[in-house]
Amino acid sequence: MSSQLTNNIASFPKISRLARSNGIQFRRWSGSASAGVTADSDGSRDMDESTARVSFYADMVTGEEVLDQKYEPVAGGSGIPQIKCYLNGLNIPFILRALTMMVKAIGIVLTVCGGLVVGKEGPMIHIGSVIAAGFSQGRITCFGLSCRCFRYFRNDAEKRDFVNAGAAAGVAAAFGAPVGGLLFTLEEGASFIFQRLTWNTLFASMVSMFTLALFRSVIDGQPFKFTPGGLVSFGMFENATSYNVYELMVFVLMGITGGVLGACFVALNKSLSEYRQSYVKTRPAKIIDAVLISVFTTVLSFMILISMSDCRSLFQKDAYESHQVVCPNGEYNRVGALLFTTPARALNALFHDPPCSFNNNMLFIFVLYTFFIACITYGLSVPCGLFIPSLLLGATWGRVTGELLYFFSPQNFPDPSKFALIGAAAQLGGIVRMIASLTVVLMEATGNVILGLPVLITLIPAKYVGDYFTEGIYDMHITLSGMALLPWEANTRCVQLRALNVMTSPVAVLDTVMPVREVYHLVFNHPHHAFPVVEGDRDPDNFKYGRLVGMISAQYIALMIKKKIYNPLNGEDAPRLTANDFDDAYPRFYKLKDVLLNASDDEFDRSLDFRPYMNYAPYRVSVDMSMTRVFALFRRLGLRHLPVVDDFNQVRGMITRKDLCRFRFAPAGKVAERVFSRIF
Amino acid sequence: MSSQLTNNIASFPKISRLARSNGIQFRRWSGSASAGVTADSDGSRDMDESTARVSFYADMVTGEEVLDQKYEPVAGGSGIPQIKCYLNGLNIPFILRALTMMVKAIGIVLTVCGGLVVGKEGPMIHIGSVIAAGFSQGRITCFGLSCRCFRYFRNDAEKRDFVNAGAAAGVAAAFGAPVGGLLFTLEEGASFIFQRLTWNTLFASMVSMFTLALFRSVIDGQPFKFTPGGLVSFGMFENATSYNVYELMVFVLMGITGGVLGACFVALNKSLSEYRQSYVKTRPAKIIDAVLISVFTTVLSFMILISMSDCRSLFQKDAYESHQVVCPNGEYNRVGALLFTTPARALNALFHDPPCSFNNNMLFIFVLYTFFIACITYGLSVPCGLFIPSLLLGATWGRVTGELLYFFSPQNFPDPSKFALIGAAAQLGGIVRMIASLTVVLMEATGNVILGLPVLITLIPAKYVGDYFTEGIYDMHITLSGMALLPWEANTRCVQLRALNVMTSPVAVLDTVMPVREVYHLVFNHPHHAFPVVEGDRDPDNFKYGRLVGMISAQYIALMIKKKIYNPLNGEDAPRLTANDFDDAYPRFYKLKDVLLNASDDEFDRSLDFRPYMNYAPYRVSVDMSMTRVFALFRRLGLRHLPVVDDFNQVRGMITRKDLCRFRFAPAGKVAERVFSRIF
Repeated sequence: MSSQLTNNIASFPKISRLARSNGIQFRRWSGSASAGVTADSDGSRDMDESTARVSFYADMVTGEEVLDQKYEPVAGGSGIPQIKCYLNGLNIPFILRALTMMVKAIGIVLTVCGGLVVGKEGPMIHIGSVIAAGFSQGRITCFGLSCRCFRYFRNDAEKRDFVNAGAAAGVAAAFGAPVGGLLFTLEEGASFIFQRLTWNTLFASMVSMFTLALFRSVIDGQPFKFTPGGLVSFGMFENATSYNVYELMVFVLMGITGGVLGACFVALNKSLSEYRQSYVKTRPAKIIDAVLISVFTTVLSFMILISMSDCRSLFQKDAYESHQVVCPNGEYNRVGALLFTTPARALNALFHDPPCSFNNNMLFIFVLYTFFIACITYGLSVPCGLFIPSLLLGATWGRVTGELLYFFSPQNFPDPSKFALIGAAAQLGGIVRMIASLTVVLMEATGNVILGLPVLITLIPAKYVGDYFTEGIYDMHITLSGMALLPWEANTRCVQLRALNVMTSPVAVLDTVMPVREVYHLVFNHPHHAFPVVEGDRDPDNFKYGRLVGMISAQYIALMIKKKIYNPLNGEDAPRLTANDFDDAYPRFYKLKDVLLNASDDEFDRSLDFRPYMNYAPYRVSVDMSMTRVFALFRRLGLRHLPVVDDFNQVRGMITRKDLCRFRFAPAGKVAERVFSRIF
Repeated sequence: MSSQLTNNIASFPKISRLARSNGIQFRRWSGSASAGVTADSDGSRDMDESTARVSFYADMVTGEEVLDQKYEPVAGGSGIPQIKCYLNGLNIPFILRALTMMVKAIGIVLTVCGGLVVGKEGPMIHIGSVIAAGFSQGRITCFGLSCRCFRYFRNDAEKRDFVNAGAAAGVAAAFGAPVGGLLFTLEEGASFIFQRLTWNTLFASMVSMFTLALFRSVIDGQPFKFTPGGLVSFGMFENATSYNVYELMVFVLMGITGGVLGACFVALNKSLSEYRQSYVKTRPAKIIDAVLISVFTTVLSFMILISMSDCRSLFQKDAYESHQVVCPNGEYNRVGALLFTTPARALNALFHDPPCSFNNNMLFIFVLYTFFIACITYGLSVPCGLFIPSLLLGATWGRVTGELLYFFSPQNFPDPSKFALIGAAAQLGGIVRMIASLTVVLMEATGNVILGLPVLITLIPAKYVGDYFTEGIYDMHITLSGMALLPWEANTRCVQLRALNVMTSPVAVLDTVMPVREVYHLVFNHPHHAFPVVEGDRDPDNFKYGRLVGMISAQYIALMIKKKIYNPLNGEDAPRLTANDFDDAYPRFYKLKDVLLNASDDEFDRSLDFRPYMNYAPYRVSVDMSMTRVFALFRRLGLRHLPVVDDFNQVRGMITRKDLCRFRFAPAGKVAERVFSRIF
């Protein structure tokens, strides 16, 4: 059905973009009346080819959708929110599976080639993370491969560091920005940053860039001659060597604009995502959603193309015959240079074409088009990055600004291209709310260090103005998905709260030695991930649950039952779990409930001794500890649960990440509030 | 006496360098026989001027020495080790005083102008930190200034963040590297890095660079036209656009060489510093030390100048008439271009002069000279940075490498200047052992992003090879000074240890209410910074010191006694400390001992109630907690002391930073060991 739908519309711009990004050179072609095109020049149209491509395109969209929906739903989106949560200390199922990566990799090739307004950079970061996680564990479960020499790395902390490095390597490959990759993970990802992690991450980024350079050197026919650079290049900005103070003021204003537009983008995307969460739940619905959006993109861009024709002579730089469309022979449609190419080429055109290369009205329409289409596309159940669309959007309105300034004062503002870059930075900053990493990424991708400073003073207002209105887009998606991401610092209002106010009570506690039957009842009533182990008197009526002597995770209990590590009956040897048992079970431990349901009646009569396997010195806090300090403990040590004790070491409650996240949401206007609360 | 000593030796190169760095243009001059110079050309020497300058120079050296020794001994050295310790959580007295900064600022001008082989970058980082600390506190105690609206920032955590930003601003101003500054503080400094700190730091760096650019724009006669860049510029490397694989291999080898040379440098400097610690203790000894070294530097450089004369035509680029010295008229001495100028200019000559500009023998001698002189100079009691001397040393041997490669294979290695830069990076990396920050600093200082990658693959071997033999130079100085710096991670051998093995016991504990007399006895026997407050039974014979109910710092007790916050007698109102009392006392709290010694006999009979002012929910750990986890708690939360309790919440011991530092020293070969311990 979707194939039919798309077949009925000649998706001109899409096809061209698709073919181009595949490196396909094809003959000059243009639209036909049968596809709603008002052909206004020669009649020698080659309809067959364009139709063939249209159906190819439609197939791809469908194929990609099915791939995502059928195999790995988690492969949808950019993956950055998920990686951010993972690095924050959350275990998200399936996020680091090899299959996820493969679906994502194929999916992103299809979506980008398919011509949706998406970038490949976010998904590349996700893919880098999965590769890193896989390598570090030395096993690919879905292929049954495992290598024992990697067992040192089989724990959450080491794996997280690898994922961190993998994400940076993804950025390095995408933008040719190894330091930008490092800063990206520092700014957005890592829960605890230490020196060695910094070095490892930088090393991974460097190797990633070298590998890319090696492949490119072979493709360029000069093997082993390394030219640094990423998959996306923004070209050289040779004119950008110094700035007048009025230029810098314009940059700040553009930063503010970027912040406001970014906040609008996030707000609109939020409403859409909420709508999708409520109504687009089933697999067919998601596929129809994606197909409808791709059709809509096609129709809209095509309408712009024919209604805004801006014909220029073919003898200009970067002129393509294939962009003729509705123009007379010997000319090409300038609009096509934005709509017909890959987003990266469109960016380069906006960045580097000489003044007056574009029709301002056309650019203005293109801003609206990109804003609207990028906004409805991000959140589809397909792999889709946000970097390139945001940059494209910002570069367009930045270019408009530059052209207008050039129009009014050519001697003061001779170079509109500079403003395109600043606009791109402002827009991206306003949407994703990063500063340090974006500055460095743009610096590295343009190869121009001097640009760092103006980009920085653009990003700072963009971020703070945006933050005044909404969260960043990744945080917004995390909030919507209900993942318990801990922010970097506790909400300032938490100063008034104590552990007492935050903790969960009553608590499900275990005795040091306990019959399996009782464990069964406890677990089915309290499906937690970990349990305090207590000794001595307890008084649940007064919320006292015994003296804390340790903590044990549900996974370990499951492993004990699975391996039948019961207290020995008379004459039996005491069985023991070995380190290998834990290694082998990691990271897909048995589910405690499943194990208990499979246990035999005989086993239910046995008892478990938790003492050898529990953590007998867990971190603990007093009921009186301030929420701010509890938060610091969680955030900096990456805890998932924390027992709360009184002065007699009696367990009084438990705090989990979810408890802390109840206090996550700062009200709008938080920045202003924070500043004032500090000064006065 | 020192003035005489120096007067007896004509310090030609020094004078020239001094004058140049002061921007003084003076007439052509050269040496005379009376000063040990074998003049070999025209006799028209202007001895008066040079003598006048010699005594000027000698006065400066002496002045600077006296300044340092008399006013602020802590102003000596580069300041980086001290700032590193401060950011790590140590309070070092005087390090952030306004007077220290002024002495350092004047001192560094004098040392650099005086011609010692030192850089101004390290001290600039220190100065930046002091300025930040001063601004954030809104008071300059030595001038009696204080502004109440800054009181929010008057605590250690906020102040530390400001110092962090100030250090980054120093790097930004020195090298024109705002991102490099950020990474410098991330890599070397901050104990806990969080997003907001990253942004604040970057913002401070940016403002610092803008301020510099503003001053420079005014000096250049184009006010408000900003050209980014720092005080030191390494010039543009236009030829560096791509690399062949054999070049990269040479870079790795140079990195290894840099690591080995760096380790030698650190080892030699360590012996010297130990010698100085043992024998150069008094103020006059330190002054004599500095004067002797400056005299020695002068004599040696002058000897090189006349013995290695390498005369070239004056019609070359960068030829200075003043460098004639022993050359015939119409020529100048190439050696002078390295010895006569500021280190930054010498660096630029090495980086950018065309092939065969230098005599390789001369360069080789210059390597030895720089290595030896820089090594004996760093550690003097004068403000002295290490960046520029290290870069100069590395650039020289890098240039030798480049020239040799050019000699053997000009078509494969056409550009020796590239190797000078790589050598500089390798040498600096081998001495200070940073990777990320150096890469970015060099990238920003050269304005060339493409250089980032080769610099990175040079720095990685330089660091790891260096680490194989010795610590980095800053860590070495920290170790020598006995400061309890906590490394980023616990020694891998600590896995076997428990809190029990590390803690100090017996413990000096306080009751919740306690007579001043008892506090007096306790404090004089146990001069700690903080005390656990306990209740209930205790059994010191079995190392049980009562149930932990809080912690109180000695400073707070001192404040209580100073403000006479005693338990009220009959009919008295209970006095209270207010938040303002704490604000006003910060950061120079009263010394508890002093306060107790000044207390009257009446006061000794009164009692103190600690409960309102103690921290009633301190972090605490179990006696069984592994050392690695205790370490993580200390390092990530920036703790200074931690009570150790048993399962009954009885205090059993205390852990301080000093206790953890006993386990700091990893043996040589630690990297190899770590790698093997991980894989097998």
